[in-house]
Amino acid sequence: MDDHSFELEIYDTTLRDGAQAEDVSFSVEDKIRIVQKLDELGIHFIEGGWPGANPRDIEFFQVVKTIPLTHAKLVAFGSTRKAHHQADTDPNLQALLLADTHVITIFGKSWPLHVTEALGTSLTANLQLILDSVAYLRSRGKQVFYDAEHFFDGYKADPVYAMETLHSAVQGGAERIILCDTNGGTMPWEIQAIWERVRDECPVPLGIHAHNDADVAVANTLVAVQMGAKQIQGTINGIGERCGNVNLCSVLANLELKMHRRVVGPEKLRQLRNVSLFVSEIANLLPNKRQPYVGDAAFAHKGGVHIHAVQKNPMTYEHIQPECVGNRQRVLVSDNSGRSGVASKLEAFGITLPKDHPRLRELLTQLKERERDGYQFEGAEGSFELMVRKALGTHRPSFELLGLRVIVEKRHAAEAPITEATIMIKVGDLIEHTAAVGDGPVNALDNALRKALEKFYPELQEVRLHDYKVRVLAGNRGTGSKVRVLIESGDHKEKWGTVGVSENIMEASWQALADSIEYKLLQSERDGEASGGSPRHSPYP
Amino acid sequence: MDDHSFELEIYDTTLRDGAQAEDVSFSVEDKIRIVQKLDELGIHFIEGGWPGANPRDIEFFQVVKTIPLTHAKLVAFGSTRKAHHQADTDPNLQALLLADTHVITIFGKSWPLHVTEALGTSLTANLQLILDSVAYLRSRGKQVFYDAEHFFDGYKADPVYAMETLHSAVQGGAERIILCDTNGGTMPWEIQAIWERVRDECPVPLGIHAHNDADVAVANTLVAVQMGAKQIQGTINGIGERCGNVNLCSVLANLELKMHRRVVGPEKLRQLRNVSLFVSEIANLLPNKRQPYVGDAAFAHKGGVHIHAVQKNPMTYEHIQPECVGNRQRVLVSDNSGRSGVASKLEAFGITLPKDHPRLRELLTQLKERERDGYQFEGAEGSFELMVRKALGTHRPSFELLGLRVIVEKRHAAEAPITEATIMIKVGDLIEHTAAVGDGPVNALDNALRKALEKFYPELQEVRLHDYKVRVLAGNRGTGSKVRVLIESGDHKEKWGTVGVSENIMEASWQALADSIEYKLLQSERDGEASGGSPRHSPYP
Repeated sequence: MDDHSFELEIYDTTLRDGAQAEDVSFSVEDKIRIVQKLDELGIHFIEGGWPGANPRDIEFFQVVKTIPLTHAKLVAFGSTRKAHHQADTDPNLQALLLADTHVITIFGKSWPLHVTEALGTSLTANLQLILDSVAYLRSRGKQVFYDAEHFFDGYKADPVYAMETLHSAVQGGAERIILCDTNGGTMPWEIQAIWERVRDECPVPLGIHAHNDADVAVANTLVAVQMGAKQIQGTINGIGERCGNVNLCSVLANLELKMHRRVVGPEKLRQLRNVSLFVSEIANLLPNKRQPYVGDAAFAHKGGVHIHAVQKNPMTYEHIQPECVGNRQRVLVSDNSGRSGVASKLEAFGITLPKDHPRLRELLTQLKERERDGYQFEGAEGSFELMVRKALGTHRPSFELLGLRVIVEKRHAAEAPITEATIMIKVGDLIEHTAAVGDGPVNALDNALRKALEKFYPELQEVRLHDYKVRVLAGNRGTGSKVRVLIESGDHKEKWGTVGVSENIMEASWQALADSIEYKLLQSERDGEASGGSPRHSPYP
Repeated sequence: MDDHSFELEIYDTTLRDGAQAEDVSFSVEDKIRIVQKLDELGIHFIEGGWPGANPRDIEFFQVVKTIPLTHAKLVAFGSTRKAHHQADTDPNLQALLLADTHVITIFGKSWPLHVTEALGTSLTANLQLILDSVAYLRSRGKQVFYDAEHFFDGYKADPVYAMETLHSAVQGGAERIILCDTNGGTMPWEIQAIWERVRDECPVPLGIHAHNDADVAVANTLVAVQMGAKQIQGTINGIGERCGNVNLCSVLANLELKMHRRVVGPEKLRQLRNVSLFVSEIANLLPNKRQPYVGDAAFAHKGGVHIHAVQKNPMTYEHIQPECVGNRQRVLVSDNSGRSGVASKLEAFGITLPKDHPRLRELLTQLKERERDGYQFEGAEGSFELMVRKALGTHRPSFELLGLRVIVEKRHAAEAPITEATIMIKVGDLIEHTAAVGDGPVNALDNALRKALEKFYPELQEVRLHDYKVRVLAGNRGTGSKVRVLIESGDHKEKWGTVGVSENIMEASWQALADSIEYKLLQSERDGEASGGSPRHSPYP
């Protein structure tokens, strides 16, 4: 392996250490989607899981092999062999080999407390099993990174022994030695002082793995880079056990924009906010709006003095250009910036209105009311365009709802419920009344609506629902709370999002479903006009 | 004022800079409650507001005068005089005097960009107005702290001018000079290098005011303390404009526990988590469970290896004793947590099983299967306990479901749907068949279930549903995807979470609702036994 292939190596452990976070649990499918996203971001190494500890991770490594990656190398993670096993029969090491990755990271103990109390073995035996385990994996053709768990605590307790554990890993052939602040309690100046001494004695490139228990993980990581660390381990959004791992979003932005070290490059850095939101979404965590660089509020200005100043010159209260990380400036409690924002959206739909047009003001008022009611149009531009067209009076509805009914019935505790939806709609002068079953009430309603409409609009057959999300909006009303439903649909050409909000999940789902259909038909009409084809009702009376 | 009354001064600006955070707005009453809490924590200075900019702050300073404080001194905040005013007639300075505090903090500009672009005055005039403003307030008997806004950016742009602004403040009689990283983009090593030079030239004790835009505010603050900073400005939970100010919770804990500097003392430090939760509550922000030191997850363990080790010795994976900051250790249940995690949970339910008991193994297998199906028990300990009791054969169901039906009906596009649930249940030999409406299908089902059961179990009347969450599990099946429902319920005594998973949202909701009721009845039964009361079915045949 060429040690100089990257100036710095970014090693992401969102899928392994990140999954140790409270409330986070990734399915195999989730993990694959995150791998693809991290690869697009230009991450160099992706730690996929611990096959020796988790059956789901074994399955993951089988599936991920079939996914082509551009930048990233997959890494399997595990512990050194058990004290009472030989390396070549140790189940954990065997599981690591079966994961079939080019790179393997194994962790071992640097802190006498852990060797004796947690591992229950002798200090000498621990040195031997570090050496054995690394050497065995190397002999099987793997590149081996060695995570020195609790290195800083170990060094503080017994510097000589801590260094011996590193020497064992080096002797075994480890190609990286990663110094871990596993408990996250080390101060930046301690990292610096210890690093200085390790660096002089350790012939292998070093890495840093920091946790955020003392709220200094980012600083600890940057200090290590200044001291010469080559590899940086962390997670997207800093998810991880307890207070989390170091947040790679902050680290990447600081490296590129503050320290001018090229790690993913300026182009990919612009995806940072998008990747952050993606991981929050997959992990089903509310994005932290105050998150440095990528959060909604990171460049949001509220104070009068600040707003006045940033409108003259953003540099006055913004430490970087938000666009460098895919973020944007927001001005809170102000309708001026709002109007230019909406006007630029309208232009994207091919509608040009002067900034002082009264319709634009109305639209802005309506948008604010909708947002206050819980609508959110960032992931639902389909609904946004329909709202605009309705407000401007240019929308022609494709169908009229005359009625719907959804029934869920369960006859016995152990029995799956039966779900049926009936719907009556009108297209032109024709009425269609039909019914369908489904996996759940929304699915049944979706099925019934399509069944009713496909007769009139066969192009709906190619519409797929890709994603359906429900978010219960804040409020202490339990099952009586408002919900927001976001639906993502797609055809052969594009994807679009639509939204609905109501205290009734069926009503919210209906709004989003109906918008999804209307948006598709708006697009076909547009395509029809563009290609000089027939108007959309023509194939049917 | 005795400069040596405290080794370090903690200066809280939650009520002023904290209130600049998106979504945060404090009433006068809120502010008074926070002042009292901060005083109890032993904070030295509390910045109450900016009376020259905010009418509500004028009222606050009138009210707060009547509140006796033990430790803290109130501070009024404002800007230097306007360029076109004299100090003794400047409205902002007059408003500061009217606030009637012993200490006043004023901020001025250190960065030429701000002097010319934001303030619109000359560099020389700016020096004069800093000097004038400080001197005027001093002449009125006030202690004056000077906030050098954007000091680090200013110093990087023009070190000579930045130093001149400080000299003007010193000449005016400022008793503290606070170096502010207003835009939050400065790196720790820059703080260190600049501090070194300022310290040598500045005869007045220095303070640090850091923002978190680069995710290093805590490190920047600690580095400043190491360089000799006497005053530390920050906010509880780090709330503040954009990404927030430095988090005083992290700073206090690090100073006391890592740097062994006495700031509030070990007794008061034990209130830290309580103060953090209190401010979140008043600010109506969800507490950040991953917040270092004070968050719910700060000492929560999920991985099996970790749980096993902390049970032998907490020091293995906890950098401090959680109790020092009023927090506690938690063990989370998941398929990562292994047998020791499950066994320790069982003990909390009063069930002791040896670690190699076959039932424990079965339970673990069942737990892993459920998690693979999409269940998650971390936020659903109620369902977990019921699963355990069912597996061990010690659960007696409180009711039997004979059937349910939920109907959602909508007769017109613009009309809200009507939702009705019917339910038939059996308790002992009695059958109850009833119906209820609701805001949505789950709410209607919830209402019907309670209506049916309250006849038998009147204690259910005090159960409230606090939260209802829906998570669509990964999968590209749109509205046919699996959903996980999490419900949080509570009574006068405790809160509990329950979970359900199905492709049908009604089925998933039903599981979580039914578990919530069963869990409550299990607790009442336990309470009844504990108090020697009657068994739970006795009031009814």
